[in-house]
Amino acid sequence: TINLDRLMNRIAALGRIGALPGGGCKRLALSVEDAEGRALVTGWFRAAGLEVHTDVIGNCWAIRPGRSGGAPVVMGSHIDTVATGGLYDGVLGVLGGLEVIESAIEAGTETEKPLAVAFFTNEEGARFAPDMMGSGVAQGGLDLDEMLAKVGIDGVSVAEALAAIGAAGPDPVGALAPDTYLELHIEQGPVLEAEGLDIGVVTGVQGISWTEITIEGQAAHAGTTPMALRHDAGLVAARIATEARAIADAFGPPQVATVGRIALTPDLVNVIPERAVLTVDLRNTDEARLQAAEARLFERAEAFAAAEGCRLSRRTLARFEPVAFDATLVDAVEAEAQALGLTHRRMPSGAGHDAQMFAPRCASAMIFVPSQDGISHNIREFTAPGQIAPGVRLLAQVALARAGR
Amino acid sequence: TINLDRLMNRIAALGRIGALPGGGCKRLALSVEDAEGRALVTGWFRAAGLEVHTDVIGNCWAIRPGRSGGAPVVMGSHIDTVATGGLYDGVLGVLGGLEVIESAIEAGTETEKPLAVAFFTNEEGARFAPDMMGSGVAQGGLDLDEMLAKVGIDGVSVAEALAAIGAAGPDPVGALAPDTYLELHIEQGPVLEAEGLDIGVVTGVQGISWTEITIEGQAAHAGTTPMALRHDAGLVAARIATEARAIADAFGPPQVATVGRIALTPDLVNVIPERAVLTVDLRNTDEARLQAAEARLFERAEAFAAAEGCRLSRRTLARFEPVAFDATLVDAVEAEAQALGLTHRRMPSGAGHDAQMFAPRCASAMIFVPSQDGISHNIREFTAPGQIAPGVRLLAQVALARAGR
Ligand SMILES: NC(=O)NCCC(=O)O
Ligand SMILES: NC(=O)NCCC(=O)O
Repeated sequence: TINLDRLMNRIAALGRIGALPGGGCKRLALSVEDAEGRALVTGWFRAAGLEVHTDVIGNCWAIRPGRSGGAPVVMGSHIDTVATGGLYDGVLGVLGGLEVIESAIEAGTETEKPLAVAFFTNEEGARFAPDMMGSGVAQGGLDLDEMLAKVGIDGVSVAEALAAIGAAGPDPVGALAPDTYLELHIEQGPVLEAEGLDIGVVTGVQGISWTEITIEGQAAHAGTTPMALRHDAGLVAARIATEARAIADAFGPPQVATVGRIALTPDLVNVIPERAVLTVDLRNTDEARLQAAEARLFERAEAFAAAEGCRLSRRTLARFEPVAFDATLVDAVEAEAQALGLTHRRMPSGAGHDAQMFAPRCASAMIFVPSQDGISHNIREFTAPGQIAPGVRLLAQVALARAGR
Repeated sequence: TINLDRLMNRIAALGRIGALPGGGCKRLALSVEDAEGRALVTGWFRAAGLEVHTDVIGNCWAIRPGRSGGAPVVMGSHIDTVATGGLYDGVLGVLGGLEVIESAIEAGTETEKPLAVAFFTNEEGARFAPDMMGSGVAQGGLDLDEMLAKVGIDGVSVAEALAAIGAAGPDPVGALAPDTYLELHIEQGPVLEAEGLDIGVVTGVQGISWTEITIEGQAAHAGTTPMALRHDAGLVAARIATEARAIADAFGPPQVATVGRIALTPDLVNVIPERAVLTVDLRNTDEARLQAAEARLFERAEAFAAAEGCRLSRRTLARFEPVAFDATLVDAVEAEAQALGLTHRRMPSGAGHDAQMFAPRCASAMIFVPSQDGISHNIREFTAPGQIAPGVRLLAQVALARAGR
């Protein structure tokens, strides 16, 4: 039995840090709001009697020892948010994991292996690309020095941002080495709600491709420059954005494509843009299809730029192949859901998650609960307490079973 | 005979105020750089023995009295620039006009009517829309209070910006009432250079339509939100930008169309944009064609927004009908060019100019000199001294003739 009120009160309390006027919150990775959030959550870790560990990129975890020691069963996620974030994305997995441990402590339930709860730095990738940065570094998928040098949307590097809020700790890369990694998360999509199900048994995460494209044209007068003589970087960006949609339409589900950022220079009403920088987010559960989508996008983008007499350059902000979770662990999640009498289905994840970074290193799996209207990365993101409770109960069952009661 | 060295030195000196690293300059209207530019230019007015007048919206002019008084023959333009501005746009008309007056003083040449040189506030419209704001107010085409309330791209109003740099003066609207208005300007387009001509005899200015369009969609997760459920405000903006180009292509010259600004919210790689604000600049020499272009753009924009389940709103930032200059004065410019042995052609102006605001009130005309590569609103904007001199000599001839030697 878990304490749902305590969990919901904590979600609400964390949501007040970086709260936005209309609801939701903005706690970009390594911002002052993130620092406040870290202090609140690690305070709860300590209040539960757990020792807090922090590594060089600011990942934090707390361990409850097991009877026989060894590698812990880790329940984790993240507490950073996008700029238009909700209260549940990431937070549920962290505070849900803490709730599982605290309930076990209160019930006097011991385990063979240690239990741990963790949150990882910059899962969202909204301020610094790539996403899943902290978990990627922790598990060796991403290089520490390369990540510390990444510069965010505000021109600040990860190393500078860590220093500014004092978020880095003494633990080295690899200090957290899970036996099992479990992540409870809101679905962030519409499937569970539409099908009236309690639980998504997550089979894997689709491949993610983030590219930043820069177009260099020529600033010129909007009134005097004949159309035939223009090198309009903004037009090329617009053509790429419409092409991204066309690719998603042509490939069909599960291919998705999003242009989330466009910045024009000089960005004035009567000046043809000399420069445009945009991002393209492409995702597919199939690596070959994802590569085909990338190939078409890059080829068409080059053609648009060439036709307008503009130069194009691009750099990869993030690139993760599709990940399949551990088959035995996924079966266990499904079996425990069944045993608890919860309605459920297997499904891939559309969003990236810290669990995918752990998957190559240790048995990893995820549990989804429904998102109202399928909405996330929006202040309206919502999952009712009655939908959260089954997810936390399932997380507890799977974690305690893996840790050995 | 004019003093070309003095003129070129002054153009260079003014160009050092707000100078950009790669050349060119940024002296946005009513900025601190604009204030410095105003001080330099009015200092030259005073050094030439002229009394300086400033009106309530910061327009400045200096008069050399004529033998019989009355309304002056005004030579004017502007000294504000866009953010990627050159050294000649506007500046040439002001400092060329000063050169005409100073040369006349030095030569002891008197005129019946007074001669005046003027510069007008915020001709560019880059910081505050509409463009031609100062001249529009001076001549009653634009309402003073409405213009003082306009808010710029940085959130500052015209009234606040005037106060911040102390640019407003005591003269009321209408204090400058020209007998004739003459404006020397760089072409800012490629025609004169391509045809190897000295002078453009400007017959009028094409109609200008500036619209700001706001799209409201829904922020959502780029990875989890199925394409069919998206309300992507950025995609609608991109479709409008490509449609603007399609309209220019379909209508053919002289129709031009430019999307100079696009701003997305929240502008993050993995969030579907919930809001997009863009500007569309449409121009045509024919009012009916311009209206047809606007009608098609607005209709298609509504359709794009509706198809994506987004809301669209729009507001007019500037709207000027095509203007024809005074036929007698245009004939006089052409005849004087011929008499000076300059090669010339009649042409419309693609850019808006202060002269178009004076045209309904007094005989007005313009003289163009070539722009290298037709480039303007770009730091590479250039017109050689040898191309400037014929323009200033022609300005002097026409002005002195109109003022009565
Ligand atoms: N879960 C989540 O929103 N992750 C952010 C990374 C992404 O998928 O864009
Ligand atoms: N001459 C000039 O560049 N005017 C600015 C207004 C415009 O035409 O966009």
